[in-house]
Amino acid sequence: MLQVHRGGAVSERYVIISADGHCGLPLADYRPYLESRFRPDFDKWVARKEAERSVKLETNFEYIMGWETSNEEGLRGAYDPVVRDRELDADGVAADVLFADADAVTGMGSPPFGAGLAAGEIEDPDLAFAGARAHNRFLAELCSTSPERRAGIALVPLCHDPSRAVKEAEWAAAQPGIRGVMIPTMWRQRAPYSSEVYEPFWAACAAAHLPVHTHSGEAPQEDYNGHLGIYLAEVVWWAARPSWHLLFSGAFERHRELVFVVTEAAAYWVADCKWKWDQYMGGGHTTKKMATLLAGKISKLPSEYFGTNLFVGASTMSKEEIRRRHVLGLDAVMWGTDYPHPEGSWPNTAAKLKADFSDIAVEETRQLLGGTAAKVYGFDLDALQPVADRIGPTPQDLGQDPARRADPGAPASAKWWLAEYGITPTR
Amino acid sequence: MLQVHRGGAVSERYVIISADGHCGLPLADYRPYLESRFRPDFDKWVARKEAERSVKLETNFEYIMGWETSNEEGLRGAYDPVVRDRELDADGVAADVLFADADAVTGMGSPPFGAGLAAGEIEDPDLAFAGARAHNRFLAELCSTSPERRAGIALVPLCHDPSRAVKEAEWAAAQPGIRGVMIPTMWRQRAPYSSEVYEPFWAACAAAHLPVHTHSGEAPQEDYNGHLGIYLAEVVWWAARPSWHLLFSGAFERHRELVFVVTEAAAYWVADCKWKWDQYMGGGHTTKKMATLLAGKISKLPSEYFGTNLFVGASTMSKEEIRRRHVLGLDAVMWGTDYPHPEGSWPNTAAKLKADFSDIAVEETRQLLGGTAAKVYGFDLDALQPVADRIGPTPQDLGQDPARRADPGAPASAKWWLAEYGITPTR
Repeated sequence: MLQVHRGGAVSERYVIISADGHCGLPLADYRPYLESRFRPDFDKWVARKEAERSVKLETNFEYIMGWETSNEEGLRGAYDPVVRDRELDADGVAADVLFADADAVTGMGSPPFGAGLAAGEIEDPDLAFAGARAHNRFLAELCSTSPERRAGIALVPLCHDPSRAVKEAEWAAAQPGIRGVMIPTMWRQRAPYSSEVYEPFWAACAAAHLPVHTHSGEAPQEDYNGHLGIYLAEVVWWAARPSWHLLFSGAFERHRELVFVVTEAAAYWVADCKWKWDQYMGGGHTTKKMATLLAGKISKLPSEYFGTNLFVGASTMSKEEIRRRHVLGLDAVMWGTDYPHPEGSWPNTAAKLKADFSDIAVEETRQLLGGTAAKVYGFDLDALQPVADRIGPTPQDLGQDPARRADPGAPASAKWWLAEYGITPTR
Repeated sequence: MLQVHRGGAVSERYVIISADGHCGLPLADYRPYLESRFRPDFDKWVARKEAERSVKLETNFEYIMGWETSNEEGLRGAYDPVVRDRELDADGVAADVLFADADAVTGMGSPPFGAGLAAGEIEDPDLAFAGARAHNRFLAELCSTSPERRAGIALVPLCHDPSRAVKEAEWAAAQPGIRGVMIPTMWRQRAPYSSEVYEPFWAACAAAHLPVHTHSGEAPQEDYNGHLGIYLAEVVWWAARPSWHLLFSGAFERHRELVFVVTEAAAYWVADCKWKWDQYMGGGHTTKKMATLLAGKISKLPSEYFGTNLFVGASTMSKEEIRRRHVLGLDAVMWGTDYPHPEGSWPNTAAKLKADFSDIAVEETRQLLGGTAAKVYGFDLDALQPVADRIGPTPQDLGQDPARRADPGAPASAKWWLAEYGITPTR
């Protein structure tokens, strides 16, 4: 479908919504956002973080300095709204979703006490909430600038204290620029996300239409003995894990409006999950002994929750993930630049899109690059179209054939396992 | 390659080696194999297991009774060698690899104290070793019957006590029928498998050519709140996890002869692992910031360890896994019946093979159904061929075209990601 302007004019320019962006103040600048009684702890934490940066510089100096010096100006968009808008413009991105931890290289843009991507590691719940709230205050301010272009994701250290988490989610829901919450990826020794203690939180998020997120980053480093390869091999799994804990504990049955998004944890794994999960529930000799025990626990096939309750913020998708798009679900997967992290496409998004999307149909591109994110986060496409008309790429810019709107037939055959196992869809 | 008999005659009958079989005594019959000082604990454990069976019967009566009554005679092959050989014969299987825990329905064929597939759950190391040794004594006896047809996998509760584990592995290596060891899938609160404390154990297993196994079963049930769907969604991952901990901690560099096998944890996941792991090590913008830190940790691409150090006992493969065979690696994946578990192909293996392998080339089938397992476990194919000539299926029995020997070209293009990311193989 073409985007129709308020005035009735038609634009082909893509409204790109990056479903994975990051923001954050330089460490010390969080101080005024933090409740004063936590400031002595904060000063010690800042000193420790700076010492950690020195160690990182010793082992990876060339890479770190290369990145920081060649992107000095753009990196300030992590907290400076004028710079952020300029960087989004230059990248052809109309809007983005803002997670914490702006500095993925040496951690100099993280919320107090590490309340961002590895909040499960914090031991004291008071520190976890204090750090989260400091960031959330900054976030609400940042998102009040260019509000149509920003969806802030507030930090809610859920497993540290479920009751306080409900209050924080309610606060977040009342801030105009905040459109979602992020919970710790790992609950560690605390109650797992399938526990009843979290029911009021899921209910609050469902009622307020606040999508709940995990974002990759945290993993059980204590198991790795410093071996980075092990971390890489499983960090995605730890971020994705809560999705099936919610699904199979029936959270989406009890809270039909609850939305859960796994961000920057790739998307390729969804293909095998859909197949295997549907098979567990619906067919096949190997799961017969479980069938009686599973029956009636959830009302749809597991794969059917993707695109309604389960979504994936895939960041800069690999070509293989783009090839798998019909299996993953155009209605479930959202592209993102990961700005301002070095592993994303910024500041070369235009070139990256041309390299990866030239053979993809226009309407499918539109869904992956922004359409699905607009629905999940409630972006106003009418308000964003003028931005896109100014800075967004056209299909021709991406090397695409503008006449190729969709791949007919492909979506219908995407769930190959239904026929193979004789599984009947419920819708 | 055709199998050439000692006499020079040629046979087309497949030598099927099931890489996943189970054995075990009825609980109480383990008593004489157990050191006498553990018998009071044992009697309590048996009583508890019988109570657990009663609960299972209450929730799943029809399924359990149906399975047990219709297979009463064949299930005795878990411990009766004459029955076992008869069941293998009827299934067309020349030989099998014997893991513990014969009864996957209500757990009535498990080693004392649960020292089998969930040995990580045991708290007292003395009980873990006592239970393992009781099973190992029984296993050595069972494997001394029809020795050419059996490869016993001894239980070694490694993480409970690394020094005792070395002694148990050395004992196992001295038993003619024992050809591998199984370690707990989960180390839980103990030292992770990337730790140096396990070095002497890996060295001992490498020196004795004893493949080390994990086998699916154990998972952190305490996180699931009784939701079976969560268990199904991640039990495979927990069994596979130690494979990349060994790989990325460099265990296969320090112990070139070390072989690690993941059994009954499916095989489909290997496809994405090979791609992603090679990408982490060898190419791609998204991993650039890690490249310096990973460099030199392992000497080959991760995917290149499959077929030399890493193997997968895939049990009854799904059609999708068979379709992925060139990516998974014909030299790395081994088919199995899972006898006498209900989720496997027994007692209908012939029909299952015909349904799944009719369009697969002969030499590829030969590798998947037995060739790779023969290499991993040191089976004597000359000794097995007469058995296969009596009971094994021919390509025609599987509905195959006997003239179709292999799929030329397919293996070469299997690692599609090397070209896509510009990664150079090391061999």
